[in-house]
Amino acid sequence: MKFYDCTTAPSPRRVRIFAAEKGLDLETVQIDLGSGEQFGEEFRKVNPDCVVPALQLDDGTCLSEVMAICQYLEELQPEPTLWGRTPEERALVTMWHTKIEQQGLIGMMEKFRNSAKGFKGRALQGPDSYEQIPELAERGRKRVQACLKKLDQQLSNNEFVVGDLYSIADITAQVFVDFAIRGNVPIPDDAHNLRRWHEAVSSRSSAKA
Amino acid sequence: MKFYDCTTAPSPRRVRIFAAEKGLDLETVQIDLGSGEQFGEEFRKVNPDCVVPALQLDDGTCLSEVMAICQYLEELQPEPTLWGRTPEERALVTMWHTKIEQQGLIGMMEKFRNSAKGFKGRALQGPDSYEQIPELAERGRKRVQACLKKLDQQLSNNEFVVGDLYSIADITAQVFVDFAIRGNVPIPDDAHNLRRWHEAVSSRSSAKA
Repeated sequence: MKFYDCTTAPSPRRVRIFAAEKGLDLETVQIDLGSGEQFGEEFRKVNPDCVVPALQLDDGTCLSEVMAICQYLEELQPEPTLWGRTPEERALVTMWHTKIEQQGLIGMMEKFRNSAKGFKGRALQGPDSYEQIPELAERGRKRVQACLKKLDQQLSNNEFVVGDLYSIADITAQVFVDFAIRGNVPIPDDAHNLRRWHEAVSSRSSAKA
Repeated sequence: MKFYDCTTAPSPRRVRIFAAEKGLDLETVQIDLGSGEQFGEEFRKVNPDCVVPALQLDDGTCLSEVMAICQYLEELQPEPTLWGRTPEERALVTMWHTKIEQQGLIGMMEKFRNSAKGFKGRALQGPDSYEQIPELAERGRKRVQACLKKLDQQLSNNEFVVGDLYSIADITAQVFVDFAIRGNVPIPDDAHNLRRWHEAVSSRSSAKA
């Protein structure tokens, strides 16, 4: 099993934190997104979608999408669970993971890729070229702020994103919030719950992953 | 357990097909998206995100996001599986489901909501107002076409989206393709594999759901 990673990108970090929390040591190959290695012939054979993270199984099967990779690792090593202890809890974790990915992380991607000079013609990840849309960068920023607010509200009566269980929903939220801070959309001053939670997840040893 | 549905919208149809394939009969409440019932006080109490589908459990917990709802129903009634028989197969089903949702279905949403007159100020679903971005409608169309092509390629050596198992990835793909056809992005003439598969899934009794 080989894990295709890029230490500077947000999405693969989600898998690295997930694996660290499970105590899994994955054989890792770095793909240099900066120089466009993801579009090279060699990596295209691994993942024709030209994105990391990707997990290549021993039979050559390639898993991409964080959700799919983490679900596979959860089945491989169920303890400690990062998904939930009951069907209800697992469904809530999946729901929050999806919401934060679609509203927060994709919002940040929209903001970043539609404004950064280096992403001209590459406003979406993957092999196809898409021009930047400046209004989409601005819309992305608004979505990110709405998602930060929603998370603060959810954390007002939950220790973690879903109740008292640290889960993949927290990992997705953590990587989203760190990406937002780096991209100049800070945690709002009055988001005390989000701030308390962010300090807690950032002090876990997996945060270094 | 109550299922909040809208018969004219694509996303809830995915849950209806899923339930039909499982033989599950869900107590259903119709929400009239056309008149804005999703923004009304009563539905906001069920789902503050103002979207369908939503599944309200008996303790009041509300599940939204198709992935989370279907995962819960899969655990409630595992047979026949619509997710996979092995960890590898389940991960591939999740991967394809996610890819088709993010590239295809969201592409169609972008095309539709950023061009239809009735969606001015509502270019994204949910309670927050977002203006239409005409370039995003055009980009959405391109993404839809790319996703149709990718599906055709995947189906060139797979009976269903993932091997010989009819799964939630097929349901997501079916609802995406039907939405694309309705939105004037037809199956390309040379997409013979996609056409063969589309006829097969459309002839299942669940397609009427």
